[in-house]
Amino acid sequence: MLTADRIRHQVVFTLKPDADEADFLAAIAALEAIPGVEAFELMREVSPKNDFDYGLTMEFADQAAYAAYNEHPQHVSFVADRWDAEVTDFLEIDTISR
Amino acid sequence: MLTADRIRHQVVFTLKPDADEADFLAAIAALEAIPGVEAFELMREVSPKNDFDYGLTMEFADQAAYAAYNEHPQHVSFVADRWDAEVTDFLEIDTISR
Repeated sequence: MLTADRIRHQVVFTLKPDADEADFLAAIAALEAIPGVEAFELMREVSPKNDFDYGLTMEFADQAAYAAYNEHPQHVSFVADRWDAEVTDFLEIDTISR
Repeated sequence: MLTADRIRHQVVFTLKPDADEADFLAAIAALEAIPGVEAFELMREVSPKNDFDYGLTMEFADQAAYAAYNEHPQHVSFVADRWDAEVTDFLEIDTISR
């Protein structure tokens, strides 16, 4: 259960047909090492009601930790070098306790 | 972390403007009592990158438990009586270990 201030960040996504799937997923998995990233899970998305193939989930203790992740050089370069080139469709979902 | 066979079922959704929000969320929360539902969380969705207002997450031990939930009379009547009438947009996401 999410406690106050805690944020669960999720992305569901689909890779382009010509993406190197194993290499891309390894690059995603390496994001877990960025400071502030907790409860990291990279999963397969299997619902017949959408076309996404993968689901990525992580948690941050608060908004500052989330912002630091977004600005971390490893994340910035991953987005520029891999994500924008190899992902064809995605949706970001951020949830907090209500 | 999801173990083999385990399924995390999620729905992000937005209510119609005339929905009774508190009453609807109470009806959602009552779904936690359906047999097989585990790790139930009803959260607020806050990402500026989508228009969904709520995120619901639950886990099932396996596909049989998920199917039993879907077919449970309480779930069937909730979908027919409340969901279809009061939800304006939603996306279902099901993830498994990869």
